[in-house]
Amino acid sequence: MKTSMPDHDDPYVVRADGEGIATLMLNRGHQFNSLSQGMIAALQGQLDAIAQDPAVRVVVIAGAGKAFCAGHDLKEMRANHDKAFMQDLFRSCGKMMMTLTQMPQPAIARVHGIATAAGCQLVSMCDLAIAADTARFATSGINVGLFCATPGVGLSRNLGRKQALEMLLTGDFIDAQTALQQGLVNRVVAGDALDAEIDKLARSIIAKSSVAIGMGKQMFYKQLEMGLDAAYQYASEVMACNMMTEDAGEGIDAFIGKRKPAWKGY
Amino acid sequence: MKTSMPDHDDPYVVRADGEGIATLMLNRGHQFNSLSQGMIAALQGQLDAIAQDPAVRVVVIAGAGKAFCAGHDLKEMRANHDKAFMQDLFRSCGKMMMTLTQMPQPAIARVHGIATAAGCQLVSMCDLAIAADTARFATSGINVGLFCATPGVGLSRNLGRKQALEMLLTGDFIDAQTALQQGLVNRVVAGDALDAEIDKLARSIIAKSSVAIGMGKQMFYKQLEMGLDAAYQYASEVMACNMMTEDAGEGIDAFIGKRKPAWKGY
Amino acid sequence: MKTSMPDHDDPYVVRADGEGIATLMLNRGHQFNSLSQGMIAALQGQLDAIAQDPAVRVVVIAGAGKAFCAGHDLKEMRANHDKAFMQDLFRSCGKMMMTLTQMPQPAIARVHGIATAAGCQLVSMCDLAIAADTARFATSGINVGLFCATPGVGLSRNLGRKQALEMLLTGDFIDAQTALQQGLVNRVVAGDALDAEIDKLARSIIAKSSVAIGMGKQMFYKQLEMGLDAAYQYASEVMACNMMTEDAGEGIDAFIGKRKPAWKGY
Repeated sequence: MKTSMPDHDDPYVVRADGEGIATLMLNRGHQFNSLSQGMIAALQGQLDAIAQDPAVRVVVIAGAGKAFCAGHDLKEMRANHDKAFMQDLFRSCGKMMMTLTQMPQPAIARVHGIATAAGCQLVSMCDLAIAADTARFATSGINVGLFCATPGVGLSRNLGRKQALEMLLTGDFIDAQTALQQGLVNRVVAGDALDAEIDKLARSIIAKSSVAIGMGKQMFYKQLEMGLDAAYQYASEVMACNMMTEDAGEGIDAFIGKRKPAWKGY
Repeated sequence: MKTSMPDHDDPYVVRADGEGIATLMLNRGHQFNSLSQGMIAALQGQLDAIAQDPAVRVVVIAGAGKAFCAGHDLKEMRANHDKAFMQDLFRSCGKMMMTLTQMPQPAIARVHGIATAAGCQLVSMCDLAIAADTARFATSGINVGLFCATPGVGLSRNLGRKQALEMLLTGDFIDAQTALQQGLVNRVVAGDALDAEIDKLARSIIAKSSVAIGMGKQMFYKQLEMGLDAAYQYASEVMACNMMTEDAGEGIDAFIGKRKPAWKGY
Repeated sequence: MKTSMPDHDDPYVVRADGEGIATLMLNRGHQFNSLSQGMIAALQGQLDAIAQDPAVRVVVIAGAGKAFCAGHDLKEMRANHDKAFMQDLFRSCGKMMMTLTQMPQPAIARVHGIATAAGCQLVSMCDLAIAADTARFATSGINVGLFCATPGVGLSRNLGRKQALEMLLTGDFIDAQTALQQGLVNRVVAGDALDAEIDKLARSIIAKSSVAIGMGKQMFYKQLEMGLDAAYQYASEVMACNMMTEDAGEGIDAFIGKRKPAWKGY
């Protein structure tokens, strides 16, 4: 994985595709991959394109250089000190974060270094996350007088509320093991095992039916916002639709016939 | 506990009652206790009867044979490949799962073996669960092209969202210790200690007032779906009603008088 | 910290202020600091006063004597056995608990001993909690025929639902380490390190901008009750407002200039 420091004229996000996996590398390593307006727009563009691309089955979000992502670009924010700019910045960032949950392909955060403020939010909003044992996480906006409000939305939907509030109120870092125990990441591995672990997880998903994965991911987030009764009514309908797809028929026939399924997909 | 393999003509569910505990044994061990239409209907019938039976204070859900429950009956689903059948199947299953949360008696899952797909959902929807250290859990529908949508409803209300999504997207098993850490079960014990541990937990609940347990269980699930302010208003009213029951008066008098309470119950 | 047993004429709650920290000591150690009507009213009065007091940056809830807080006063409840009394008691208690989440200053529970029933609820409703390793937690109302309905509201918003239900249905104690693992407290330390740990956490918060902390805390609880999309819209607006405050400008300038920020605060 590329970790050299790119020049300023390089694209904000570098996309590399391979065998169903699209890796989006945040490409401002010397700026700790801060989520400037340019970076947010570049990510939005890539995610929108991938959402429409049936060849992509899993998207990996990675960072160039030492940090995964250090949140918003404070210099850019200070240089554009008016409320309309701020509203636009946070709204466009929130829209990009929501896209991660709305696109049919699962998104995996590859967290090799620090993930702070909106960078920590980016981890929280990916469907899955794998961290190197040296990764660290913080919602550090409070240190500069800016409570990490939008990062708190994602964080409080991954961690318990006391654990999320401690991070938000103190700005303190938690290490990778704590992030694992508290639910922010799925696995922690040695840094040199990170790519292999991401690959293994991605391949496990790619081996499944794209129709079932896409339907299921969308269903998952929608039902989370419903009461139990409504969630069951909705999930039952989705599952009945899923069962009527060719892939479910093929999958069950293959299972009964003890053979490998041949998915049709989208 | 009976673990022999029953014949096909045997009842789907065998109920055994003893000292306030009704054990419902899923009785298709040779089919891994799959939740066929017949099994769901049998469970619904038993749960409805128990809900009306004040002699039963705790219900234990157990499985005959090697598995706890392996989810829906794929052969039956494949043999009835129309959408109306599927809608009816998932709705009736969801209704049975909801009944576990709606009946006044606490339900404990006794998980001695694998619990997959809707079998994993069954564990998630019981109020409490105790697992043998050899038990394993998966939402494996995705392996046959069928995302575990309805199991996801229960799972995502027990585990963190990243942990639930990993199970749903990969179909991978988690072991009993992981299930404990992630919130899917309350305790993990050696297989030969499973019945004693279930019995101890059940007796602890049976020693309480049935009125207070029934009121409290219903309140618990209702308030979970409310905002904090509405939840407090509702819980305050329930607690005031509970306080006016004979059992609360007796309980407090017994506590002050340092004697054992004599519950009146329903 | 004062731990002598006060006389009955002493105030219910003793407030001690020092360097931005207001410590509210529940002052009925010989009654295990039970939440009688008098105690609830005294706490409500103190919290309301603190909420308006910009000199206070953090509030610490502590208990005199051996116990942190043993819940409602059963003798008082038994001596006033009518429904209107109960409704008033639980509503006023719920209102006081809600105030902890609504006031701008973060509230830290200092749990040195047992926290049971509404005392356990008090821990759950503080923004943060630090416990001595000898502290223990239970929702023990069920032992006297009174399901801990209102404590369940707070508990089920800190713990997983199976873990919360086990406590509510059995009345059993969990120790401090279990409370940490399940999300009820932020840290567990030796009893003689408790004050130092509370102080360290409080000072970390006091070092931040009071405007950002107050805005952020309010935002945190409101967004928890929203769907993801609404939560992002709301949090984006709050963050834009926060960014336009003097403190955020000062904080970012100080960060860029590598100097300590001088907050203006409220």
